[in-house]
Amino acid sequence: MTAYTATVTVRLKRGVLDPEAETTQQALERLGFELSDLRSADRFEVDLDAADADEAADRADEMAERLLANPTIHDYEVAVAER
Amino acid sequence: MTAYTATVTVRLKRGVLDPEAETTQQALERLGFELSDLRSADRFEVDLDAADADEAADRADEMAERLLANPTIHDYEVAVAER
Repeated sequence: MTAYTATVTVRLKRGVLDPEAETTQQALERLGFELSDLRSADRFEVDLDAADADEAADRADEMAERLLANPTIHDYEVAVAER
Repeated sequence: MTAYTATVTVRLKRGVLDPEAETTQQALERLGFELSDLRSADRFEVDLDAADADEAADRADEMAERLLANPTIHDYEVAVAER
């Protein structure tokens, strides 16, 4: 078994309203920053032991499907690195 | 001016309690997943125009300092890519 860190990034699908990101963008603009868009996402870093990187990615994928992301409104991506 | 996307990742400093991550980890374990740790972070993707990547990174850095991160409890990192 090898120790891996799987990073799961969960973001809202295109078209889903994101009032938190909108508020953050407006606050930055009020502070004088110029930006054309801001999107927010959640990032989970999961430490796990697995036989290889593929197994670690599969398990992180299943965690995303079952709990970390809501498939109705979220897209997610998984990246795996040795720890 | 070139169009860049600056990604600001904001995470809790080591030692700061993260009840959300703890709850998420316990929920995954209840679902039968084996993991040794879980950390959560916020990720902001900021689209902006800048003369070069260094300027884009500097501005994203200032956004993190002034609004996106709370230096008392957060560490952050900035990554810049052309859009």
